[in-house]
Amino acid sequence: MLRIIFLLSLLFALSNASVQDFCVANLKRAETPAGYPCIRPIHVKASDFVFSLGTPGNTTNIISAAVTPGFVAQFPALNGLGISTARLDLAPKGVIPMHTHPGASEVLFVLDGSITAGFISSANSVYVQTLKPGQVMVFPQGLLHFQINAGKTPAAAFVTFSSASPGLQILDFALFANTLSTELVSATTFLPPATVKTLKGSHRFISLAKTKSKHSP
Amino acid sequence: MLRIIFLLSLLFALSNASVQDFCVANLKRAETPAGYPCIRPIHVKASDFVFSLGTPGNTTNIISAAVTPGFVAQFPALNGLGISTARLDLAPKGVIPMHTHPGASEVLFVLDGSITAGFISSANSVYVQTLKPGQVMVFPQGLLHFQINAGKTPAAAFVTFSSASPGLQILDFALFANTLSTELVSATTFLPPATVKTLKGSHRFISLAKTKSKHSP
Amino acid sequence: MLRIIFLLSLLFALSNASVQDFCVANLKRAETPAGYPCIRPIHVKASDFVFSLGTPGNTTNIISAAVTPGFVAQFPALNGLGISTARLDLAPKGVIPMHTHPGASEVLFVLDGSITAGFISSANSVYVQTLKPGQVMVFPQGLLHFQINAGKTPAAAFVTFSSASPGLQILDFALFANTLSTELVSATTFLPPATVKTLKGSHRFISLAKTKSKHSP
Amino acid sequence: MLRIIFLLSLLFALSNASVQDFCVANLKRAETPAGYPCIRPIHVKASDFVFSLGTPGNTTNIISAAVTPGFVAQFPALNGLGISTARLDLAPKGVIPMHTHPGASEVLFVLDGSITAGFISSANSVYVQTLKPGQVMVFPQGLLHFQINAGKTPAAAFVTFSSASPGLQILDFALFANTLSTELVSATTFLPPATVKTLKGSHRFISLAKTKSKHSP
Amino acid sequence: MLRIIFLLSLLFALSNASVQDFCVANLKRAETPAGYPCIRPIHVKASDFVFSLGTPGNTTNIISAAVTPGFVAQFPALNGLGISTARLDLAPKGVIPMHTHPGASEVLFVLDGSITAGFISSANSVYVQTLKPGQVMVFPQGLLHFQINAGKTPAAAFVTFSSASPGLQILDFALFANTLSTELVSATTFLPPATVKTLKGSHRFISLAKTKSKHSP
Amino acid sequence: MLRIIFLLSLLFALSNASVQDFCVANLKRAETPAGYPCIRPIHVKASDFVFSLGTPGNTTNIISAAVTPGFVAQFPALNGLGISTARLDLAPKGVIPMHTHPGASEVLFVLDGSITAGFISSANSVYVQTLKPGQVMVFPQGLLHFQINAGKTPAAAFVTFSSASPGLQILDFALFANTLSTELVSATTFLPPATVKTLKGSHRFISLAKTKSKHSP
Repeated sequence: MLRIIFLLSLLFALSNASVQDFCVANLKRAETPAGYPCIRPIHVKASDFVFSLGTPGNTTNIISAAVTPGFVAQFPALNGLGISTARLDLAPKGVIPMHTHPGASEVLFVLDGSITAGFISSANSVYVQTLKPGQVMVFPQGLLHFQINAGKTPAAAFVTFSSASPGLQILDFALFANTLSTELVSATTFLPPATVKTLKGSHRFISLAKTKSKHSP
Repeated sequence: MLRIIFLLSLLFALSNASVQDFCVANLKRAETPAGYPCIRPIHVKASDFVFSLGTPGNTTNIISAAVTPGFVAQFPALNGLGISTARLDLAPKGVIPMHTHPGASEVLFVLDGSITAGFISSANSVYVQTLKPGQVMVFPQGLLHFQINAGKTPAAAFVTFSSASPGLQILDFALFANTLSTELVSATTFLPPATVKTLKGSHRFISLAKTKSKHSP
Repeated sequence: MLRIIFLLSLLFALSNASVQDFCVANLKRAETPAGYPCIRPIHVKASDFVFSLGTPGNTTNIISAAVTPGFVAQFPALNGLGISTARLDLAPKGVIPMHTHPGASEVLFVLDGSITAGFISSANSVYVQTLKPGQVMVFPQGLLHFQINAGKTPAAAFVTFSSASPGLQILDFALFANTLSTELVSATTFLPPATVKTLKGSHRFISLAKTKSKHSP
Repeated sequence: MLRIIFLLSLLFALSNASVQDFCVANLKRAETPAGYPCIRPIHVKASDFVFSLGTPGNTTNIISAAVTPGFVAQFPALNGLGISTARLDLAPKGVIPMHTHPGASEVLFVLDGSITAGFISSANSVYVQTLKPGQVMVFPQGLLHFQINAGKTPAAAFVTFSSASPGLQILDFALFANTLSTELVSATTFLPPATVKTLKGSHRFISLAKTKSKHSP
Repeated sequence: MLRIIFLLSLLFALSNASVQDFCVANLKRAETPAGYPCIRPIHVKASDFVFSLGTPGNTTNIISAAVTPGFVAQFPALNGLGISTARLDLAPKGVIPMHTHPGASEVLFVLDGSITAGFISSANSVYVQTLKPGQVMVFPQGLLHFQINAGKTPAAAFVTFSSASPGLQILDFALFANTLSTELVSATTFLPPATVKTLKGSHRFISLAKTKSKHSP
Repeated sequence: MLRIIFLLSLLFALSNASVQDFCVANLKRAETPAGYPCIRPIHVKASDFVFSLGTPGNTTNIISAAVTPGFVAQFPALNGLGISTARLDLAPKGVIPMHTHPGASEVLFVLDGSITAGFISSANSVYVQTLKPGQVMVFPQGLLHFQINAGKTPAAAFVTFSSASPGLQILDFALFANTLSTELVSATTFLPPATVKTLKGSHRFISLAKTKSKHSP
């Protein structure tokens, strides 16, 4: 009997103090530098802590590859926990092009197939390895890296990041798929203007496609 | 005269920049991973920085002990300052049962009486000491620990944590006082199902008591 | 020609500044609160960034399960990168017993089979889910959690942590497999002394085995 | 063609995940311990990342000096980026009086003239240097420091801080320009009460000036 | 039997991974920005986690007060745990003079007597309170603050800090007890040179005393 | 007299506790994830806190530009203080090519001339501005950015970073000036192999030059 009294009083006394175990993101509220405001613990369900990366992404595209992110924006329970996830799928000849994550280190675990992965350090050294299923590779924060299917069968990997919101800057997009002028790209990369124009060419369709979709009824 | 002009202009120029000295929590607003939104400095009073832990907690209960927390939820001025407080009271034979603070290290200062305290490390080593008034013991973050009255008189301690919201997971509650099934508890702890059922028994009264209090007029 | 002069001079000027991209641990040196001292970048090889978790752990044991860690102590390239890895293997009826990681949140990705996993919050709520291959579950830092094989076939999972050195405190070990006396365990957990003694019994063989191995030629 | 499909789908998939590249402060919303809530990226303009410190501050005042801050409150794009700026201007004989930044280290770059700068450590050592244009001095977090024009011409400096909201506590203000009683100031600083009263005297005009401006039509 | 095999193998596999539970400082080794290198866990004793602040400091001095620190330098188990301790003793009329902790917030718990404590914010607001035994006050990081015995009996307090190495800058020492010239002190504080000289006078004996003690046989 | 006794005893009691005000790097010792070990405070001189960026870098090179870093490797007093510096010089038509700092945000202050600077976000938006002397621009951590002389006269800037060791990855070097094969560069960037070969061509001289210098007497 006394035990119950104790338990009840202690539970009530502490109920507010333990919210910070987790902070499932309320994505409708404005983000802060530390992440999103939390939804109230009473509205959190066990299933909020589960996310599915079981379905391979669609690799029927120019890079024969797909990235399926499980960052805080897709998996709100990660908010404030300093970790996030993604799935990579690479058809034969598939490539996850050169990119960086400005805010996180990455660990990659090969699920299927064979993947050649590499990164380049600030000191301009190259670290490339070909990985088999069950092998893990780590990519330090903010450095350029890539993954390529090294075999003749589909490859897949599960990746995690040391931040709930690691960011993703794909080099090809950053240089050729936005409003940065050919002149500036060429001047800052030493690429010939003609090459820049060609690469920007295919990307120009994007804004076109976007614009069209705006105007289509 | 010129001094005043300087002072006034500088004070106005900087008045917004200095808010982050402190950030007294607005507990009515949704928490973020870094804590609560701040109330405006103009509404902060000197007394907001003071909290009372002078009254011993009620130890007339099954554990003959009481924890009185001064976490951010009770003491909003701690918000964002990376520190919080509590008071422990232990009647003779009193026990603060095995527990962890998932988000903070703890420092305990014995006020009165004699306390046997200990923690267990990840490497499964045991660190137990019996403390007198004026002695301090530190408990590293996230490890199981406990405090027991080691004397025949009441004991008390002032404790602080390296987080404004350290959390508190009491082992006995976590295993026996919620919806976790006897089967799962037994399977994951190697405790005999009969023992688990007995311990869950007393806790079953809690939900009962809660339910009752809802229905009582 | 001038380009080369530029490149050379810039490379030399900056070569020291970029060490902190990564800091592969020198495990022979004393650790610090932020991790191990780094080995010199010139001694770092691409293969240092790769670790193998492809081989299932040996599950021929009392829990029918195995944990294969890839923490900084096994995978030194993780030092300072805020992330680490492990592999879980669960034979049918296998159990990863109730445990905490004092220093990290955890993400679990199911590779094979079906796993029932759960954690208990500071507010004493229970979050349990049964997961299929490709599903991910996140366990917030420092909270008690467990994994059980939910199917009739072997199950496996790849897990990552938000720290290079997450720690691992297994409840069963912490309570029953060390020098903590039956009296203290019973007093702080409310378990009957007889139950504690029985559970400590099997563990007593450990120190025996350890002692023997010291004396064996 | 396929490339475009890929690009579009990837862009849409990731658009929410990349907000945390930056978090331009919404100064109208309540601050949190980690900074202000972000304005939506769609409303962020290139010019938001630019701030002007090109105009010398007005040094026609008692200290013959001016501080022009570019903290998060003036330059909202700094929110969450862990860095901020200011400009110092010192007429001949100008002095930035003894002060601290409670939340940041400081780097000072001399633009014009000659500046004698110094700080005092916790161990009570004094580090004073006279700097010329192009020289940089670093002041560790939270320590008392000052800058004085060491020449006969105007001096200026650009300073940055290791926090978006470094705070600024000017010793003279803290002791003499607020409601702290002469008795308390004298008791805690060992300054003679008469000296304290004299120094508080000139500051008393501040509240007067403030009060007046409230009442003036 | 199988249980033992499991336990032994798991214990050995993980023994290195769990060092970071704690990192007791090896004070003989060079510090790093994150603290001291750790001593090996095998050399850590339970008593290393205990420190005594039970003996009042000697208050027979000019300020009728004493500070007894339990920082990482005195209490090495605090290394890396983000928390530290101290004891304050104030005889009647005792004063802990105006000071800052550049690297930590502080929580003060009054043990005996009555203490008037206060701090001054960056925005130049004053927060002063008179505290009784059992009351707690928090002082935000880096701000000037003080404690004075408010009663006619001895007063004492237990304080903790949100850093293992909070630092301590005493205003009176910083201005008057080192090599900073009267000219610089006066110019940067607006104190009359005569006052500065008087206050420096008593401090000049320090170097004298120090010098003497070097030469005395 | 009593004052002196107090001062001496307090100074000695605290002398070890205050080291962490600063931690001037001992560059001869192995780095840790948090920076270098500190040199002993007794060996630290006031001039250690000063660094010179007053001399323009040599812009007689292919990019007509120069970066002069003042990172922890060049300016050891920055160790652990979370801030560092550099100077940019751009002759007419000078370019600081596209690059990232994996570990820091950057603030740029224009000293002379006119600079067009820009960065690209994870969401692939472009933020470009042309800056005049006295203007400041901030570049969020880890994102591709560049600076170009926008005028006909030399330009210069003082830059600071939110880390003592921000790193620097120059895109042109990372892609073309190391052992990364033409095949991998082309596959991961979509650049035509011929273009890659041409750009790698000029860089091939680097290793040649390096090799030569090794063999030259």
